[in-house]
Amino acid sequence: MKKKIILTGDRPTGPLHLGHYVGSLEARIALQNEYNQFVIIADTQALTDNAENPEKVRKNVMEVTLDYLAVGIDPNITTIFIQSLIPEIAELTMYYMNLVSVSRLKRNPTVKQEIKQRNFSNEDKDNSEDSIPLGFLAYPVNQAADITAFQADLVPVGEDQRPMIEQTLEIVRKFNRIYGNVLVEPVIKVPDRITRLPGIDGTAKMSKSLGNAIYLSDSPDVLKKKVMGMFTDPNHLNVSDPGNVEENPVFSFLRAFDPDQEALLQMEQNYQRGGLGDVKVKQHLLYILQQMLEPIRKRREYFAQDKGEIMHILEKGTAKAREVSAKTLSDVRKAMLINYF
Amino acid sequence: MKKKIILTGDRPTGPLHLGHYVGSLEARIALQNEYNQFVIIADTQALTDNAENPEKVRKNVMEVTLDYLAVGIDPNITTIFIQSLIPEIAELTMYYMNLVSVSRLKRNPTVKQEIKQRNFSNEDKDNSEDSIPLGFLAYPVNQAADITAFQADLVPVGEDQRPMIEQTLEIVRKFNRIYGNVLVEPVIKVPDRITRLPGIDGTAKMSKSLGNAIYLSDSPDVLKKKVMGMFTDPNHLNVSDPGNVEENPVFSFLRAFDPDQEALLQMEQNYQRGGLGDVKVKQHLLYILQQMLEPIRKRREYFAQDKGEIMHILEKGTAKAREVSAKTLSDVRKAMLINYF
Repeated sequence: MKKKIILTGDRPTGPLHLGHYVGSLEARIALQNEYNQFVIIADTQALTDNAENPEKVRKNVMEVTLDYLAVGIDPNITTIFIQSLIPEIAELTMYYMNLVSVSRLKRNPTVKQEIKQRNFSNEDKDNSEDSIPLGFLAYPVNQAADITAFQADLVPVGEDQRPMIEQTLEIVRKFNRIYGNVLVEPVIKVPDRITRLPGIDGTAKMSKSLGNAIYLSDSPDVLKKKVMGMFTDPNHLNVSDPGNVEENPVFSFLRAFDPDQEALLQMEQNYQRGGLGDVKVKQHLLYILQQMLEPIRKRREYFAQDKGEIMHILEKGTAKAREVSAKTLSDVRKAMLINYF
Repeated sequence: MKKKIILTGDRPTGPLHLGHYVGSLEARIALQNEYNQFVIIADTQALTDNAENPEKVRKNVMEVTLDYLAVGIDPNITTIFIQSLIPEIAELTMYYMNLVSVSRLKRNPTVKQEIKQRNFSNEDKDNSEDSIPLGFLAYPVNQAADITAFQADLVPVGEDQRPMIEQTLEIVRKFNRIYGNVLVEPVIKVPDRITRLPGIDGTAKMSKSLGNAIYLSDSPDVLKKKVMGMFTDPNHLNVSDPGNVEENPVFSFLRAFDPDQEALLQMEQNYQRGGLGDVKVKQHLLYILQQMLEPIRKRREYFAQDKGEIMHILEKGTAKAREVSAKTLSDVRKAMLINYF
């Protein structure tokens, strides 16, 4: 039986952090054995709001690839490829753009939120939705092209990305209604386990742009500095004070990464009762993260020594991705009657 | 010395008419000897507002090509190609879309006007600018990609298309500022002579959508019916009445097509003085148009007999167009630092 196809990936705008690890990387490592997995390094999408920083995007294509290999995404079974090298995605985007109205895109909650988070420098500061680059508004359409180019059955994303997948479904259904049944309707696959890690500053989400992230590539020294400086319960002033473990990122991290969750429950009770100091808990977390990140760091260093090999992996993955997407585009062109020769 | 490059073309949404002839075809026939001319059959752009009518677009790719060959555009010196077969144009469009804001596109007068002329069926009838398909809003960006893919020096368009070229210039300048000098700034080339022909119903512009056009492919019978039924001066009731030649499409046509403009002046004076009947003037126009269209019709029939040869011409032109645009895209990718391998 044909293996189901998964599409997943990242925008190369920075190295990957622990939030990515629990949010998606871990799932990819597990899924790659069971599914035909394509991982897109979405440089074209990174450029939609980094048009003036091509160096940043270029640099992070390499960083993200290193992160993938370091955590154990296996290029022999997972296809890692670069989006901008797949012209079929650009072509599909052009055709899908005719199937979605401008107002529909503006109503997309994810687009709305992302527009708020960004600060587009533009002449129209008074009308944020119109001040965005057209490419950014077209982002969900481009994502539909990514997913359908590989006729993905499953798209593993967090709950917050559901509107993006709904947009893809709308496009797929409209395309199939007009031109005939060509595109596969993808199914969203929300991961079972915790998907959102707070930042080290205690804000709800670890994020590169908020500067509150622990990167997979952080050195032991940097890691130590970040963990020991983490936000905890601000009311837990003395060791003997009762502490809060719920809104406490140190414990959130432990719930995400401590392999001994039973012992962790014990520790949480001690902290809540009073008598367990933050430094002790942080040292425990630091130990666990060092244990976890050390082999990743080692593999990263190993791969980083041979940039040529990395490029070879990307080239091979991209060639395979083109083969698959070319087949899809060919079917699409035939259905749209633009298969001339 | 390198020949200057011209880009021009049409959206294949219908066969070409006399308005196209005086507006652009005539210029192309003249320019092809002096310039390196690329003629784009913009099927991708035709689909932006014909997404649900792919048959119409497909059919008219052939019709428009036949019209080109029939009027004397010579495929041995002019490169005729199909837009959707040039993936480089889609790719450039994606990158340029990051350089233009949504509001800038909405302010484009040509986009505004075209939105008004069309009647997009959509849920948002109350907000016409937002109810358009994204692809239609992106139309000027796609046109910038067309022009720059061939590094065109000159774009021969009417005055009404100037805002589209201004948009291209803005994109070119922004691209060159961010990524370095790669793209050529095109110059608009407004034709010297009359560019706008009225419709046979007397409205200001001959247009397929207004149903007031004389097509290059009209049979002698259809031509006769259209010319003899043309709108004239509504106050010229009796032959002896003085007539108006200015707002009279029959005379506008004669001013555009009568090879003997001196005799025409005489005829205009007779008409203005009174004593010259509409039927006589129309018969004269019919004779001139038959003279002009007969060889075009003959060549059209000749070419139409061998669809395989037409496809061969398009295939050859498209291959040449790809070669040129691939070179541009390669320079663009290098400048944008997305030339990985």
